[in-house]
Amino acid sequence: MAEIVLLDDLEDPRLRDYVDLRDVQLRLRLEADRGLFLAEGEKVVRRAIESGHQPRSFLMSPRWLDGLADLLDASDVPCFVLDDASIEKLTGFHVHRGALAALQRPELASPQEVLADARRVIVMEDLADHTNVGGAFRAAAALGFDAVLLSPRCADPLYRRAIKVSMGSVFWLPYARVEDWYTAPDVLREAGFTTYAMTLAADSVPIDQVPHDVERLALIVGSEGHGLSPHWEKSADHRVTIPMAAGIDSLNVASSVAVACWELRSR
Amino acid sequence: MAEIVLLDDLEDPRLRDYVDLRDVQLRLRLEADRGLFLAEGEKVVRRAIESGHQPRSFLMSPRWLDGLADLLDASDVPCFVLDDASIEKLTGFHVHRGALAALQRPELASPQEVLADARRVIVMEDLADHTNVGGAFRAAAALGFDAVLLSPRCADPLYRRAIKVSMGSVFWLPYARVEDWYTAPDVLREAGFTTYAMTLAADSVPIDQVPHDVERLALIVGSEGHGLSPHWEKSADHRVTIPMAAGIDSLNVASSVAVACWELRSR
Repeated sequence: MAEIVLLDDLEDPRLRDYVDLRDVQLRLRLEADRGLFLAEGEKVVRRAIESGHQPRSFLMSPRWLDGLADLLDASDVPCFVLDDASIEKLTGFHVHRGALAALQRPELASPQEVLADARRVIVMEDLADHTNVGGAFRAAAALGFDAVLLSPRCADPLYRRAIKVSMGSVFWLPYARVEDWYTAPDVLREAGFTTYAMTLAADSVPIDQVPHDVERLALIVGSEGHGLSPHWEKSADHRVTIPMAAGIDSLNVASSVAVACWELRSR
Repeated sequence: MAEIVLLDDLEDPRLRDYVDLRDVQLRLRLEADRGLFLAEGEKVVRRAIESGHQPRSFLMSPRWLDGLADLLDASDVPCFVLDDASIEKLTGFHVHRGALAALQRPELASPQEVLADARRVIVMEDLADHTNVGGAFRAAAALGFDAVLLSPRCADPLYRRAIKVSMGSVFWLPYARVEDWYTAPDVLREAGFTTYAMTLAADSVPIDQVPHDVERLALIVGSEGHGLSPHWEKSADHRVTIPMAAGIDSLNVASSVAVACWELRSR
């Protein structure tokens, strides 16, 4: 059972996992260095643990203890208790949905492991925005894609904001980083995938012209600003695009991924 | 040409259109009372004016004057100039993209006018979140839907956040409010539309089973929390759903609308 630890000193070193949650750069560094990630809100904390992630500690105000009693009972890490105002001061924002938990960042599988049993994969190149990464995971998971590959610079799916927007799908949709991005097309090809780059290149075909019987399919989406790299644009087996109404800005990344995952689903 | 007015008194009544932009409730009231809406950022201000909306005034710090010189030249309303810190104090946030403009809220067309020439319509019932309304407009516009109907309680497409997320598509995609929501199914039927309610009702069919040759089609989406009202669920000609992977939370509203607009496009 979790030890309930009442604290009032915000300098307590045991609270260091929880400082300055709104400072993205600081958090990314701190969480990588310390090998943790942060879950926010009762529902997300619950999903993180139910999907097998190991908590390091919990942090909440007294009124949330009851709702999470079952998780605390089943755990043997400390649960730090502070009043709401102190939590706000420590973390830098008002935690609407109560509990926070710091969890061990899991060891990532290799791309080969993640691809082994997958039929529909989404490959994210350098998405910079955590909201977009979370939204793309949510759409891919809901629409039956079964794995994700990330470029080295793609934003972290386990960053608090990405977790939240993904509705926790980052916890169980298998993903891996490809360390040497230049080799990514080969990694997919060797695993038996036909690759489709989403791009406005001159030879892009409308996405509804992709045959429905592709056995193993990988869809590659590029960054919000610059789109897909020339390397991927050239190396992919095919280039596809979602036809848009004249003169319109593109869809946002999560919506594009949703449309593409829907159109390219196994069927 | 716009009169450039250097101000330093934040209590100046001429600045009242710009107060407390982060206070959603206050702004909704103030903008309705005063018949205005607010555009944020050079690109959005430009699109608002280019799509025919009448500015009441501009507000910017000195360094943005050059970039908007053409708009200011063509306008005869005042351009208030304050330093960045004062703008932040007045509006309640740091305006990253420079200019703000207050514009006349246009008179809305009637549902009948909006439907007259449309073939693909999206009907939004009680969406509460401005981000979702903006995202749904953006997706609908990009994917070739040509009109929007809103329920009386649906969030305001001309609220600053909705405008931004919509990438300005709220400025030119025609929309109307249906005052008496109970009559909405009839309004659509009388205009010759076949109505498709997006819902998990027992008799919902997968959205890809909708025939491709529906001449005039309206897709109705319900609110984030409760989904579609029973009235609409029963009154629609058909009920459709986007099949999801087992055990997954639904897509968010904008992604659902994107998938549905794609699947139900004119073809």
